[in-house]
Amino acid sequence: MNIETTIDTKQLVTPQANFPQRLHALRMSMAQAGQDAALLFSLDNLRYLMNYSGEAAYGLVTQNAMYLITDYRFLEQAQEECISERIPTTVICRDRDRQNLGQAIAEILQIEKAIKVWFEAEHISVAMWNAIAVENPYCLFTASVASLEQQRKTKDAWEIAQIKAAAQIADEALAAIMPQLQVGVSEAELALELDYQMQKRGSAGVSFATILGFGARSALPHCIPSRKRLQAGDLVVLDFGAVVNGYRSDMTRSFIAGKSSPLQKALFDTVTAAQQAAFERLRAGVAAVSANAAAAAVLNASPYAQYAGPGLGHGLGIKLHEQPFISAVCQEYLQENYVVTIEPGIYIPNYGGVRIEDDVLITEHGFEFITHAPKNFELEI
Amino acid sequence: MNIETTIDTKQLVTPQANFPQRLHALRMSMAQAGQDAALLFSLDNLRYLMNYSGEAAYGLVTQNAMYLITDYRFLEQAQEECISERIPTTVICRDRDRQNLGQAIAEILQIEKAIKVWFEAEHISVAMWNAIAVENPYCLFTASVASLEQQRKTKDAWEIAQIKAAAQIADEALAAIMPQLQVGVSEAELALELDYQMQKRGSAGVSFATILGFGARSALPHCIPSRKRLQAGDLVVLDFGAVVNGYRSDMTRSFIAGKSSPLQKALFDTVTAAQQAAFERLRAGVAAVSANAAAAAVLNASPYAQYAGPGLGHGLGIKLHEQPFISAVCQEYLQENYVVTIEPGIYIPNYGGVRIEDDVLITEHGFEFITHAPKNFELEI
Repeated sequence: MNIETTIDTKQLVTPQANFPQRLHALRMSMAQAGQDAALLFSLDNLRYLMNYSGEAAYGLVTQNAMYLITDYRFLEQAQEECISERIPTTVICRDRDRQNLGQAIAEILQIEKAIKVWFEAEHISVAMWNAIAVENPYCLFTASVASLEQQRKTKDAWEIAQIKAAAQIADEALAAIMPQLQVGVSEAELALELDYQMQKRGSAGVSFATILGFGARSALPHCIPSRKRLQAGDLVVLDFGAVVNGYRSDMTRSFIAGKSSPLQKALFDTVTAAQQAAFERLRAGVAAVSANAAAAAVLNASPYAQYAGPGLGHGLGIKLHEQPFISAVCQEYLQENYVVTIEPGIYIPNYGGVRIEDDVLITEHGFEFITHAPKNFELEI
Repeated sequence: MNIETTIDTKQLVTPQANFPQRLHALRMSMAQAGQDAALLFSLDNLRYLMNYSGEAAYGLVTQNAMYLITDYRFLEQAQEECISERIPTTVICRDRDRQNLGQAIAEILQIEKAIKVWFEAEHISVAMWNAIAVENPYCLFTASVASLEQQRKTKDAWEIAQIKAAAQIADEALAAIMPQLQVGVSEAELALELDYQMQKRGSAGVSFATILGFGARSALPHCIPSRKRLQAGDLVVLDFGAVVNGYRSDMTRSFIAGKSSPLQKALFDTVTAAQQAAFERLRAGVAAVSANAAAAAVLNASPYAQYAGPGLGHGLGIKLHEQPFISAVCQEYLQENYVVTIEPGIYIPNYGGVRIEDDVLITEHGFEFITHAPKNFELEI
């Protein structure tokens, strides 16, 4: 029932994800900050560090040990995924009826004699954290200031291969459903067919709930597919992605059902030019704000300035929206092997919108396209 | 392209969701607790209170006003969904580059002259909360102790209709894919077909990532569908649900590919008996722990006691796992119009598992089934 793709599946296995390097880098940061242990609450970070892809789990790292605390529902999965020579995790199965999470953490922190402890303040609720802290009165806790998120901005070769594979699946799925992008199809029908085609090609679910709007609804940057049916002359905005081994793609294409009006064409040309202006700035060492400014200059010089969406793009990887967030207030510099989206858009309420989004890999001297779907604007209907 | 279902779509519209009552109940709780305002961070609660189904939004309620703070991406959606006579929301569009969330909240709290403020400590990260609190030094904040989650346990007629519609979609989708549950099909292929059939029938995405395991993998309570193919004699555990207007269903069925062995039959009969024992306790006013004890007594008296999963079920609604959580330590009493799952299971590592799960509506004198798919254990292959 699976559909053949042209994906080279070898690229998904070789090279390996660099787990030892990731753990080493975290321990270096901990040592520099004088921390005995780090408490991890982000499932994305557990995947990055320990290869864990389940739910309901918490991590604890010291200079000598690495723990994953989960419960019976995910025990076998954790044992399969997180225990190997390259990923030396101790998996703890907690009986949630008999031990709260704070007590389980206290038990490990005492064994490890950890006093100064980092915790991921971005990834734990106030209520859960208060319940953990009260069980650990002898620890000195400090927010870890997104240490793993900093690491994750730079993708290794294995990670880049996964994102490329996800993008290729999305490219192929879009090509497969283009014949169905005809007058009369509904947003929900087309989005479902696209999601199905991505998963047929090996996407694990979808990168995010597919965004698809026809006509005036294309002006909604996060349009939820409805029963609205495509009419001749409608703008179409389609934003979607696939997932391979936990890594996501994210692409937007805009179309017009038939021949475009002068205004529609002008919107498309303006957004295309804004994206191109940003592309020309991309290379390692450039301030992200400079790419944003280049796109913004094109949008602001157009008659549609007031309808331009703020922000240019975002990092992409295990999470759909990762650092760096490329906007007018971004203080980051693009670096080699960052993967980011470039997605300028114009949204005219009650009329329609145009957004074009590609994923790119930042290289020493420029960038490489990760998304490849054609950008034909006018559909033959 | 949509498939006809037998769902009476009128039931989805009439009666209406009781938004005024929900807001009134929250304001009563606030008044009783002497709170001037409540800060809401749970998207589920924003949906429940304001009909908002987007992302990236925050709520603020006083005795006289109700606010939703979002940004340009969700502005039009918020205006459509959250502003009506019955849902008197003021929608605020925040420019995230110019105003942080804490400042936007401070502006409203000052207009509303609110000093004593509830906040949803379960639904905001430590990092975000610290950033909000620092902008609001004159407020006295208190955790709101899940006031809306308490309300949400009791479903109104409209909510019950949505859950029933979701369950019916799931029942019909399962019936549609049963012919494909044949030797040679892979877990991933079958799960994808099931998800597709649910969405064809109107499910908005799926209730949760479909759980499907063949053979020994059926012992994983949260098995992620893999490329493993069905073999004759395999146990099959299939756990899935649909979503209608934000409300979820959740059902598990277990099968055997062909004729069962005595052990397989014994597992199925034990789980069936445990579920039946729990059913017999269900009615308004009963301690949830008593239903759990009835099922546990059957499981514990069997030769498979050590392999029984802890816990019996959970509330179900906007969220997949809601209060009450029915386990040995549950302190709640079941009440009329609670919707809960009843899902005993036995999981034998490296052998296989059986789980049977139904959604039920608690009534004055008993309960009503919401899920209806047949429980035929042996498949004709």
